[in-house]
Amino acid sequence: VTDLSRGAVWVDGDVVDEGAPALRADDHGFLVGDGVFETLRVRSGRPLFLDRHLARLAQALAVTGIAPVPDARLRIAIQEVLGAGGLDDARLRLTITSGPGGNGLLRGATTTVVVAITPLPGPIGAVAPARMVTALGARNERSPLAGIKTTSYADAAALMSRAAAVDADDVLLGDSCDRLSEALTSNVFVVLDGRVLTPGRAAGCLPGIVRDLILDAEIATESDLPLTALADAEEVFLSSSVTGVRPVASIDGRTLPVVDGPATARARRAVATAEADELVVPID
Amino acid sequence: VTDLSRGAVWVDGDVVDEGAPALRADDHGFLVGDGVFETLRVRSGRPLFLDRHLARLAQALAVTGIAPVPDARLRIAIQEVLGAGGLDDARLRLTITSGPGGNGLLRGATTTVVVAITPLPGPIGAVAPARMVTALGARNERSPLAGIKTTSYADAAALMSRAAAVDADDVLLGDSCDRLSEALTSNVFVVLDGRVLTPGRAAGCLPGIVRDLILDAEIATESDLPLTALADAEEVFLSSSVTGVRPVASIDGRTLPVVDGPATARARRAVATAEADELVVPID
Repeated sequence: VTDLSRGAVWVDGDVVDEGAPALRADDHGFLVGDGVFETLRVRSGRPLFLDRHLARLAQALAVTGIAPVPDARLRIAIQEVLGAGGLDDARLRLTITSGPGGNGLLRGATTTVVVAITPLPGPIGAVAPARMVTALGARNERSPLAGIKTTSYADAAALMSRAAAVDADDVLLGDSCDRLSEALTSNVFVVLDGRVLTPGRAAGCLPGIVRDLILDAEIATESDLPLTALADAEEVFLSSSVTGVRPVASIDGRTLPVVDGPATARARRAVATAEADELVVPID
Repeated sequence: VTDLSRGAVWVDGDVVDEGAPALRADDHGFLVGDGVFETLRVRSGRPLFLDRHLARLAQALAVTGIAPVPDARLRIAIQEVLGAGGLDDARLRLTITSGPGGNGLLRGATTTVVVAITPLPGPIGAVAPARMVTALGARNERSPLAGIKTTSYADAAALMSRAAAVDADDVLLGDSCDRLSEALTSNVFVVLDGRVLTPGRAAGCLPGIVRDLILDAEIATESDLPLTALADAEEVFLSSSVTGVRPVASIDGRTLPVVDGPATARARRAVATAEADELVVPID
C-alpha cells in the first residue's frame, strides 16, 4: 500500500510500493551510472516547465546515446504518480537508464524508466541561506557529457558528504581552468561591481531551467568568472528547479557583504512571475 | 530458479533470481551513481587477488565516505555466489552503494551490497587486439574521486557507444593536461624507444591490480606521456583484471608497427606467473 504522504514511484509501467524491490541488479543505471534524469517542481498538482524538462531530457538521451523514450509515455507516467502520490506541492523526478545490460559497458536493448514524486525537503520557503565551500578542478568542462544531467554523480555525493562534515550546505565547483562553474545541484549567480553574472556553458555547467528564466528576464548575463573573483563578490545566489532561488550566506567561511539582497530578490520575483504565467496555461 | 550457465547474483544477504527485481528505486547507486565496485577474475573456482581487491574497495569506500562493509561479509557473499553460479572461470563483481536515500545527494543509513558472478565475454584468449580511438580531456585528474573505481561511469558508457559506432573497441582518455591517462576500463602501456611506459597516478588513472603486477615485475615504469607521444608508439597493450593483458592493434586508425609483440608477451607472462603463484596459496 502506498503511503500518500510520502509520494509514489512508477517503474516501467506500474506504480510500485515504496521499499519494495523494483529494479534488476544488472541495471546499468545501478552498475555504471548510465542514465539521465530531470527534477521538477510540482505546484498545485502541476509539474512546472514540463515541456522544457522533457526537451532537455530528450537532448540528454541523444548525447549519451541511450534510446529515446516517447514524451507521451512519460506524460502518462507523470499523471499516474501524481494521482497515486497525493502531493500538491512536491518534487518530481524522471530517471531513464540504459537498463539491464551485459558485462562492462555494453548496453542492453531496453531502457528503464522511473518516475517518482516525493515531498519537498522542508516547509516551503524555509531553506536557509547556503554556507558554501569551493572545490578546485572538480568540474570537467571537457567531459564528453559536460552540461548533461546524468545519474553519475558520485563526485557530487562525496563532495556533499565532505561539505556536511565541515557544516557547509553545498559546494561551488571550479573547472579545469579554475573558473567558477556551478554548485552541486544548482547554478550560481554572482554580483560583481553591481552586475549580476553567471558562468557560461564553456565552464561545463548544466543549462538550468531556472537559470534560463533568470537570463530571459535580463537581470543577469553570462560571463567567465575566475574562482578568485568570489573574493570580491557582493551578493551570491543559487538557482534550481526544486528549491528555486536560494541566497548564499558565506563562501569558504567569508560572510558575504549582502545576503538575500536586491539581486536575489529580483531573481526570485522573475522566477515567481514565470511560474505564475506557466500555471495559467491550460493543461493539454 | 537460477540458471547455472548464466551465473548468479547475491543482493544484501540472498542469492536472487536473475531478471527479478532486487533493488529499490530510491537506491542512490541508481539515482546518483553513489557507489564503488571491484571486478575480479575467477579461475579454477577462485577469485584471483581477492585480498588486493578488498583492500582497494575499502579504500574507495573511505575516500567516497560511504560506510565500510566488513571483509568477512563480502567473503561469505562471494562463497555463496560461487556456489550458486557453477562457473569455474568467470567474472566476479562486488558493488557497494550508499543504499536507499533521500532527495538529492543526502545519503541514507544502509549500504546496498551486490555480488555477481557472470560468464566471461567470450572464449578464454579469444579477445582480438583492440582498435582504439582517443578522447581529449575526458579524464579529470583533479576530480575529488580521481583514481577511485566508482559506479559513475556515464561518460565511459557514452564513449564506448560512440567508439562502437566507428568500429572501435575501446577509448584512450586524455586528462586535462592532454596527457595519456588510461582506457575506459583498463590501464595502458606504451612502448617508446624500446622502453615500456605507463601513465602515473597524476594523470588520474585507476591503480589497476594487473597494472601493479606488471610494474612489480619491473618490465614497465611510470611516466608522464603526452597524448602526442602515441604517434611514435611502437607497441601498445592494455591491462585489466578480467581480460588480463590485451594487445592494441591501432590508435585513431593508425596500425601500430608491432601488434602483440615482445613487450605484450612479457607482460602476459608476468601476469600468468603471478596468477599461478596466487593459485597455490591455500584458501583461508
